[in-house]
Amino acid sequence: MITQPTVRYRGLFPVVPTPFTSLGELDLDSQKRCVDFMIDAGSNGLCILANYSEQFLLSDEERETLTRIILEHVAGRVPVIVTTSHFSTRVCKERSKRAAAMGASMLMVMPPYHGATFRVSETQIHEFYSQLSDSVKIPIMIQDAPAAGTAMSAPLLARMAREIEQVCYFKIEVAGAAAKLREIIKLGEGTVEGPWDGEEAITLLPDLDAGATGSMTGGGFPDGIRPILDAYFAGRRDEAVNLYERWLPLINIENKQCGLLAAKSLMKEGGVIECEQPRHPLPAIDQDARAILIETAKRLDALVLRWSK
Amino acid sequence: MITQPTVRYRGLFPVVPTPFTSLGELDLDSQKRCVDFMIDAGSNGLCILANYSEQFLLSDEERETLTRIILEHVAGRVPVIVTTSHFSTRVCKERSKRAAAMGASMLMVMPPYHGATFRVSETQIHEFYSQLSDSVKIPIMIQDAPAAGTAMSAPLLARMAREIEQVCYFKIEVAGAAAKLREIIKLGEGTVEGPWDGEEAITLLPDLDAGATGSMTGGGFPDGIRPILDAYFAGRRDEAVNLYERWLPLINIENKQCGLLAAKSLMKEGGVIECEQPRHPLPAIDQDARAILIETAKRLDALVLRWSK
Amino acid sequence: MITQPTVRYRGLFPVVPTPFTSLGELDLDSQKRCVDFMIDAGSNGLCILANYSEQFLLSDEERETLTRIILEHVAGRVPVIVTTSHFSTRVCKERSKRAAAMGASMLMVMPPYHGATFRVSETQIHEFYSQLSDSVKIPIMIQDAPAAGTAMSAPLLARMAREIEQVCYFKIEVAGAAAKLREIIKLGEGTVEGPWDGEEAITLLPDLDAGATGSMTGGGFPDGIRPILDAYFAGRRDEAVNLYERWLPLINIENKQCGLLAAKSLMKEGGVIECEQPRHPLPAIDQDARAILIETAKRLDALVLRWSK
Amino acid sequence: MITQPTVRYRGLFPVVPTPFTSLGELDLDSQKRCVDFMIDAGSNGLCILANYSEQFLLSDEERETLTRIILEHVAGRVPVIVTTSHFSTRVCKERSKRAAAMGASMLMVMPPYHGATFRVSETQIHEFYSQLSDSVKIPIMIQDAPAAGTAMSAPLLARMAREIEQVCYFKIEVAGAAAKLREIIKLGEGTVEGPWDGEEAITLLPDLDAGATGSMTGGGFPDGIRPILDAYFAGRRDEAVNLYERWLPLINIENKQCGLLAAKSLMKEGGVIECEQPRHPLPAIDQDARAILIETAKRLDALVLRWSK
Repeated sequence: MITQPTVRYRGLFPVVPTPFTSLGELDLDSQKRCVDFMIDAGSNGLCILANYSEQFLLSDEERETLTRIILEHVAGRVPVIVTTSHFSTRVCKERSKRAAAMGASMLMVMPPYHGATFRVSETQIHEFYSQLSDSVKIPIMIQDAPAAGTAMSAPLLARMAREIEQVCYFKIEVAGAAAKLREIIKLGEGTVEGPWDGEEAITLLPDLDAGATGSMTGGGFPDGIRPILDAYFAGRRDEAVNLYERWLPLINIENKQCGLLAAKSLMKEGGVIECEQPRHPLPAIDQDARAILIETAKRLDALVLRWSK
Repeated sequence: MITQPTVRYRGLFPVVPTPFTSLGELDLDSQKRCVDFMIDAGSNGLCILANYSEQFLLSDEERETLTRIILEHVAGRVPVIVTTSHFSTRVCKERSKRAAAMGASMLMVMPPYHGATFRVSETQIHEFYSQLSDSVKIPIMIQDAPAAGTAMSAPLLARMAREIEQVCYFKIEVAGAAAKLREIIKLGEGTVEGPWDGEEAITLLPDLDAGATGSMTGGGFPDGIRPILDAYFAGRRDEAVNLYERWLPLINIENKQCGLLAAKSLMKEGGVIECEQPRHPLPAIDQDARAILIETAKRLDALVLRWSK
Repeated sequence: MITQPTVRYRGLFPVVPTPFTSLGELDLDSQKRCVDFMIDAGSNGLCILANYSEQFLLSDEERETLTRIILEHVAGRVPVIVTTSHFSTRVCKERSKRAAAMGASMLMVMPPYHGATFRVSETQIHEFYSQLSDSVKIPIMIQDAPAAGTAMSAPLLARMAREIEQVCYFKIEVAGAAAKLREIIKLGEGTVEGPWDGEEAITLLPDLDAGATGSMTGGGFPDGIRPILDAYFAGRRDEAVNLYERWLPLINIENKQCGLLAAKSLMKEGGVIECEQPRHPLPAIDQDARAILIETAKRLDALVLRWSK
Repeated sequence: MITQPTVRYRGLFPVVPTPFTSLGELDLDSQKRCVDFMIDAGSNGLCILANYSEQFLLSDEERETLTRIILEHVAGRVPVIVTTSHFSTRVCKERSKRAAAMGASMLMVMPPYHGATFRVSETQIHEFYSQLSDSVKIPIMIQDAPAAGTAMSAPLLARMAREIEQVCYFKIEVAGAAAKLREIIKLGEGTVEGPWDGEEAITLLPDLDAGATGSMTGGGFPDGIRPILDAYFAGRRDEAVNLYERWLPLINIENKQCGLLAAKSLMKEGGVIECEQPRHPLPAIDQDARAILIETAKRLDALVLRWSK
């Protein structure tokens, strides 16, 4: 008989974007309002320093500042997942221990990768997460996304769930996510505490049908996504489907047109943050894409456009 | 008439590896001996914090420590190129200004990239280098390598040479390097002060024939490569060919079998550094590859095996 | 002043799937019914032998058979685009001339590519399409899709539109399609007769806003997509948005869950074709993905489920 | 106890290039001379229709013509491996059965792939080779090369050797070839009849040390490579090393500078074939690369330059 794990975290944990000033500095006031909005909008928890937070545009010191400031500001209102990915096992461990000490509830970590060509083998990936697990006492979420350029098979992921203590959450956002979620749940033999998805919720319904218990989406409209999850988990699938199809146009615009800039443009439009510019050299949002994004959000009466008013 | 630029730097500038202790900490004593060996072995200059220095396994703070310690230890004996690549224009500028202030002679910078999927357009690449150039007063070398996953055409590179003040060195280590060197020299109209190659010297002869004036190789055997360049630049091509073919077996073993681990294993074998382990999760060198590396270096009587004795 | 081209073809040209028997042979009876359904369902035209037709699983001889049989069976009811991509300019020309002789209205051709590594330069791509253009008298559509692994910039595409007689249609299905359509229309200076999109219509609205005049979608539900285009082109954008959002759930399931298997499963479910299996070694459709596909199509009362009844 | 397989084929099996006329047609006279030269130069066997034969530039009909003509012309002088790769299991089987009927001694087959994005899972790859094996009675060589864009692990390859009757030869030309050869030999438990390498012999020595019993190189200088293999297999490793280092400059020029064009340029220079042009849109050889190729071959007194005189 398979023992089901106690599920510590479930539901909607959107990615917190990182607002900058027009000069490209961290804008901590906007950052705090952004977090407040996301909690008010219904997030079950938050994730910081993800790729959609432009983490790859930050210095180490800025990462530490953001982790500290956000965890202090959230002050336990919701659990916070901190991304601590780094190619080096040692650096990742140090980042992770500091995040845990500051109050992170979970760590999200991609497998080691650098650029287009530096990758390591399955053996090394397993060792990487094992050593990381040994250094912390909070759960680790493995992020399985195309950005890593590292194919991790369902058997490998499930084996890490079974063998590595803190590895028990998985964010699957590669092609065939639903089938992969099903497979890791089965092969994990009760050790996959959190089979989650991501990718702006563009695959949410099939992933929920596959057994997903959490979703890490963009940060712009938790008020749209949360009720879908609530209805689904309460057994009202038809209602969830209905709500999902209602918000799908906005999800699709984020997923295919705006990417990580969607949440920031929505927040700027609604007055939550001061400036929506990504850090250079990421380009500003395409103005036509932005127009259709705002138009679609207005049609849905998204909270982000009225929260700060 | 095309004005030829004054060439400030030319010749052999090998990459300095980063030695760690068996616990994975920086080993600064080994680092200093490594630098001393590389200068004694005939390097015209050095490059630090490159990918072959395992730069992607370091924290920001360790980068600063290494830059400071190495520049102090070199103390002007040879010019030092410091790699300051970062996706963020702002972070790259800050790194670069600090490196220049500490005494770097040149900056080596890859175009912005992250993982397998985050890339920017030509317009953004041009802006990135322009802003960087405006913030420093030393030359910038653009590194054109497959690791960046960013195809930069010869016309783009040459245009940056013509239009951006400090951009005047290019390290070309993509397929077709020789033809690309020829093309950027021609299209650069006299602004390409340093057309260089890399890739462990595996393409050195055709690149020299194409007009290369410098080479950034691995750090294990400058005593082998330097005389090739000296002979070639002195007009004795036959001698250069002869010397090249003599060292080619070792170059090939480094290029195809050992990669960034070659220099460290040679230095450990010769007693220059204490420990040859790369930082985890990079795997240790394959023992069979190591055996043929050392066997080949012995046959060539490489200095690294006897320098510290 | 820019002369607008006469637009010979516009609207919905979905990809015709290739049905096989359970033994993997061509099933020409199913093929004909499939084509009849797609015409009845409102397609303005058809495209055969695309990647969604499993063209890469066919022999040369089967390609010829399909081209001949389908063109004969369509018999001019709608225009047919025939895909004739091949790495070799010579082979592509021969295929194209035969297709034109059999009655193709247009050719769709990807740039030369093979596997993960064989690609050619912009110069060669331009020559490839030029030579092809010289050998035929019908328009050529350049397919700009990730499968080719060949980044073709908007300036390159527009230059080919301006300089190569038959190159005047473009199917853009790469990231940022809308912005790219805008750019090629502008840079084409009146020579881009058909700026189209693809990708199962997942980006249709922004692409129409950008000026797209045609769309090449999957073949399973032309009755859903055609009215969107009709409303949009008649100036009733609100109605188009409304219709689009209604069909988006099915578009999304096709795009992210089922891929090229969607049309065949819908057609098998509705009795249009005998067997939905792709050719081995492509795997059968995931049964959970199929379930949500059919469920969604039923909710929309898609014609494919009732046409043959 | 592990039963060692009887080794049916070993030694040097270079790839036969496909000569074209200046108009791009097959040049069968040149083709025959090319084959005669390669046999005279010491090839233990030949391989046709590989990527270095420009197979991806041929029509199905031309493949058949070449297979028939070459097998007839070789007439049993040496064994011939015919490449029959195709994405479709069915098409690959048909090609393979025809090749076997015409006298092929072995089939070389890559795993299914198309372009940059169409790939199948390990399960499908296994099925593909199983079905192929069931349809023929001659050995199958799995080609493991970057062009396929399909990572096949050593455990997968070894499992196919153990489980699939005709799968017993492996051409490994990915990074880390020597270590991979060692691993598949070990995991294959006596079923890996032919662990071979490729890649123009640039990794030959480490691969031989790893247990390689065959090598599939370019076709331009079998007289250079064959004696290396003979010496090595006769237990005279020092002599093999010596010979290898002598020919390495030419191997390196082929591997890094000229690629598949090297053999054709050497053969044209020596009068073996009429025309060295690849099929369009592959570009002609870079003239500087060609110059250093010929210069290097002359220094080595390569047979190709004097065979037809």
